[in-house]
Amino acid sequence: MNTAPAQSEPRNHWVLTFVCSDQPGIVHAISGAVVAARGNITESQQFSSSDTGRFFMRLQVESPANRQDFEAAIAPVTETYGMTWQLDVVGRPLRTLVLASTAAHCVNDLLFRQRAGQLPVEIPLVLSNHGTLRDLASFYGVPFESIPVTDASGKADFERRVLEAVEEFDIELVVLARYMQILSPELCERLAGRAINIHHSFLPGFKGANPYRQAHARGVKLIGATAHFVTSDLDEGPIIEQNVVRVDHSRSASELVAIGQDEESRTLTQAVKWFAEDRVLLDGARTIIFK
Amino acid sequence: MNTAPAQSEPRNHWVLTFVCSDQPGIVHAISGAVVAARGNITESQQFSSSDTGRFFMRLQVESPANRQDFEAAIAPVTETYGMTWQLDVVGRPLRTLVLASTAAHCVNDLLFRQRAGQLPVEIPLVLSNHGTLRDLASFYGVPFESIPVTDASGKADFERRVLEAVEEFDIELVVLARYMQILSPELCERLAGRAINIHHSFLPGFKGANPYRQAHARGVKLIGATAHFVTSDLDEGPIIEQNVVRVDHSRSASELVAIGQDEESRTLTQAVKWFAEDRVLLDGARTIIFK
Amino acid sequence: MNTAPAQSEPRNHWVLTFVCSDQPGIVHAISGAVVAARGNITESQQFSSSDTGRFFMRLQVESPANRQDFEAAIAPVTETYGMTWQLDVVGRPLRTLVLASTAAHCVNDLLFRQRAGQLPVEIPLVLSNHGTLRDLASFYGVPFESIPVTDASGKADFERRVLEAVEEFDIELVVLARYMQILSPELCERLAGRAINIHHSFLPGFKGANPYRQAHARGVKLIGATAHFVTSDLDEGPIIEQNVVRVDHSRSASELVAIGQDEESRTLTQAVKWFAEDRVLLDGARTIIFK
Amino acid sequence: MNTAPAQSEPRNHWVLTFVCSDQPGIVHAISGAVVAARGNITESQQFSSSDTGRFFMRLQVESPANRQDFEAAIAPVTETYGMTWQLDVVGRPLRTLVLASTAAHCVNDLLFRQRAGQLPVEIPLVLSNHGTLRDLASFYGVPFESIPVTDASGKADFERRVLEAVEEFDIELVVLARYMQILSPELCERLAGRAINIHHSFLPGFKGANPYRQAHARGVKLIGATAHFVTSDLDEGPIIEQNVVRVDHSRSASELVAIGQDEESRTLTQAVKWFAEDRVLLDGARTIIFK
Repeated sequence: MNTAPAQSEPRNHWVLTFVCSDQPGIVHAISGAVVAARGNITESQQFSSSDTGRFFMRLQVESPANRQDFEAAIAPVTETYGMTWQLDVVGRPLRTLVLASTAAHCVNDLLFRQRAGQLPVEIPLVLSNHGTLRDLASFYGVPFESIPVTDASGKADFERRVLEAVEEFDIELVVLARYMQILSPELCERLAGRAINIHHSFLPGFKGANPYRQAHARGVKLIGATAHFVTSDLDEGPIIEQNVVRVDHSRSASELVAIGQDEESRTLTQAVKWFAEDRVLLDGARTIIFK
Repeated sequence: MNTAPAQSEPRNHWVLTFVCSDQPGIVHAISGAVVAARGNITESQQFSSSDTGRFFMRLQVESPANRQDFEAAIAPVTETYGMTWQLDVVGRPLRTLVLASTAAHCVNDLLFRQRAGQLPVEIPLVLSNHGTLRDLASFYGVPFESIPVTDASGKADFERRVLEAVEEFDIELVVLARYMQILSPELCERLAGRAINIHHSFLPGFKGANPYRQAHARGVKLIGATAHFVTSDLDEGPIIEQNVVRVDHSRSASELVAIGQDEESRTLTQAVKWFAEDRVLLDGARTIIFK
Repeated sequence: MNTAPAQSEPRNHWVLTFVCSDQPGIVHAISGAVVAARGNITESQQFSSSDTGRFFMRLQVESPANRQDFEAAIAPVTETYGMTWQLDVVGRPLRTLVLASTAAHCVNDLLFRQRAGQLPVEIPLVLSNHGTLRDLASFYGVPFESIPVTDASGKADFERRVLEAVEEFDIELVVLARYMQILSPELCERLAGRAINIHHSFLPGFKGANPYRQAHARGVKLIGATAHFVTSDLDEGPIIEQNVVRVDHSRSASELVAIGQDEESRTLTQAVKWFAEDRVLLDGARTIIFK
Repeated sequence: MNTAPAQSEPRNHWVLTFVCSDQPGIVHAISGAVVAARGNITESQQFSSSDTGRFFMRLQVESPANRQDFEAAIAPVTETYGMTWQLDVVGRPLRTLVLASTAAHCVNDLLFRQRAGQLPVEIPLVLSNHGTLRDLASFYGVPFESIPVTDASGKADFERRVLEAVEEFDIELVVLARYMQILSPELCERLAGRAINIHHSFLPGFKGANPYRQAHARGVKLIGATAHFVTSDLDEGPIIEQNVVRVDHSRSASELVAIGQDEESRTLTQAVKWFAEDRVLLDGARTIIFK
């Protein structure tokens, strides 16, 4: 809702997300708090999960209140309803750490869109187990480090650097942009709910090495990609986004790889964008996406 | 929001849609009215139009209140904010009049899905300017009438019967399911906002007779369909839904017709479904679709 | 290639498909045979499988030759190259047996499109293990029989009737249009390469009962359908066609079912259409689709 | 068709495209020439245009023959049938001149994919009427020149440089990658059949300034892009490729622009790829695309 505020009064654009037990009066209560903060709701989405009995909401609010005042206005409501909540500024770039190996497609898409102003992230570091992408990062003015992961000790070094970087740059999201190493369960645990991975997807699914070759052998007609949260259960975390494209019998296994990479790029970038805009909420093993 | 009501208390599932001038406090006010009606909001969507300064909302509410009590609960709010509103029961079949000519594809899709329980409409009459579809209607147990429209007098008779039927069956929606006559401006006016038409769509658009032949001659790669509200400005009413599919140079003009018909069917049915579920609101020349 | 034949000479439109070992000169040889039959090639597709070393071709040929003469013209070539080949008339309706259970969506789509002239099949019988779809078949003027399959003896009766019907009606294709019983290995064997099944598809795949519920629990964003040849390896036969649609968190498990059914209908009908047009060839576990 | 050539004999991979009047025996004749050149056909597509009576074919042929010998082998056939033909090496990078203005999205996509080995072009020059994209070109190691086009004289200079560059670099394709100036009819004429443009597409189409604003005002549900050959009839040249994506009422006009740009990039790159692979043939106002 837009009103005409006094010209001299600056307005902030807040995004508030929260989760609580589903019960009557939540919308009335929170919208009352918004009124108290002299705010206008510019975007609103809600979802009641019949699976878990939880209520999810995302609000964008224009208000003259600063963070302290806004938080004070909503405090009685968040406490009464036992909400888990988060307050952010619309459009604020999310501090994002990118992990990569040798494949360029996902990293390039993230960096290009970030620079083009289409992706609200800032990337203080690309960390890779190879040096391959150093020039690409450099072109986009993004710091790059590589730590070889050829044995257990290298892997430990790499993961230690991940956690250091998370600390050092106050990282809010870790993106595995075709980082081809499995994270240790401990690291998965530490990054729970703030690490996103991308992998190829097929109908039907194929397990084991070289799935593109298997997909080719079986003659699949659709190939795609799935972006999901990282969990210690490999490739089984909550799904954020999926895409597919059509292929036919004339495609070689290596063409399937190229097609699949395009899907990986756009699917991962989309998932990161929604996450950075506070549009991804977790409901047990499912995601709520407030597009 | 779901609560556990006393088992003995029956609950209604209401859908409330409204439009008003955008201003602070609307959500708080209407959600307060819902609380007063002991209702739980199970689905909620809103949109502020920066083009027209209007605020649109659709709420689904479970409540023990009957219509009279629910209307009483919201009356102070709808009056204060000068809302144009509508209250309906979720899932209630919409009384729908189908106009047709000789093409079966759209009518068949509507009738099949209506019977399969996928489309919340009841169809008391299919009215056509030809007898071709009599058997189809009969199979689905839907009354059918035909009035030839071969001259101005026939056209007047047909349109008079449309208005009679609208009256007789208390029709809420008129669907032009490939009805191939242009409605008179007077009838368009009478049915404004409650008549939906379907037509083929091309990139780029083609005017004049036999657009499929033109599309073929130009070698278009996409053909599709647009469902829109009927206005006296032919094929220029507010758009409700659009779909396209890919075609290539090997398709003959008649194959393009068959492909286009599939798109027409699914696009029209989708538009009717959203309308029947009170998900289509008008904002000047645009539609707000609360999917 | 179109020429202007003498007006008095009738022309047939043949479709020739063949498979043989890949080697030089095949196209030259077969096109020479077409010239010998005074034929014009109106459509041609070929594929060399690097997996199996086999060469696949589909030709549409307009020719004044009758079947006997056409076969005589190509005989030297088919023998020299050891071709497995098939000669058919373009557009000839394929004799198709439909197996069904209680779900109407796939059967309705097949029958509607067959009657609308969009699907070149003739259906002498719908055979079901339930009586549910009797009226639907009747409306389309298609004979219907039901044989309960509640025990091993019923299953044997049903499968015996399948084989009888295949014999009686000279059936060329058996379509499992949501027939919910597993065929015996013997019947799969007997129908190898001429029976098509449809099943739902998810990313990732789900095994076991109620996959839609699993897909809902996991929060998948795409659901779809796969049409494939029937083999004794359940749901693992060569894939003919696949489609998916996008869904989100707000869809209930039962809505996923409805959406999935639409995909099943259109995917199965598409697969049947390609098969009836002699566009589906087998290359080991893969299909070659000459669209 | 693959044979096992003597290990010592090098093999070339040719792509032959031709057009001629449709008549009997063409396939037989050209495949005979391929046999004479000891070639194996690895890919073959043909199309008979009933609109223009012309026959189109694209062949990929593995052969030990060098260009001179291959041309000698096909000469009798191309002469007899009056073919317009072209012989190229599969995968040879096409010499491509890119014209640009200030928008980066299309240029970036072309350069990234070229470097990634997904697009068989070499780009000796990006020529722009602005300096904006100098750094982008530099990162990819591509020469960049800018010539301001602020008056008729500047425009003449720019177009003169285009023709010089075409000469200097033996350019085979000119890509207008969001070059925002209208080419003179003379230049269009000079580049006929070897210049590709990209523009946004809407259903329905919108003429005049700021089409995205018009599309927003009308509430379109699909926006897209069309890649086409440049002709002096603005935006009306033969269509090569089209894509669309779905949008809804919540998208601002500027969001529509961002979404449309993605479609422009991928549609233009796809069209360039097909052209570079000799898959785009002209049939009057239509294109034949041998994917």
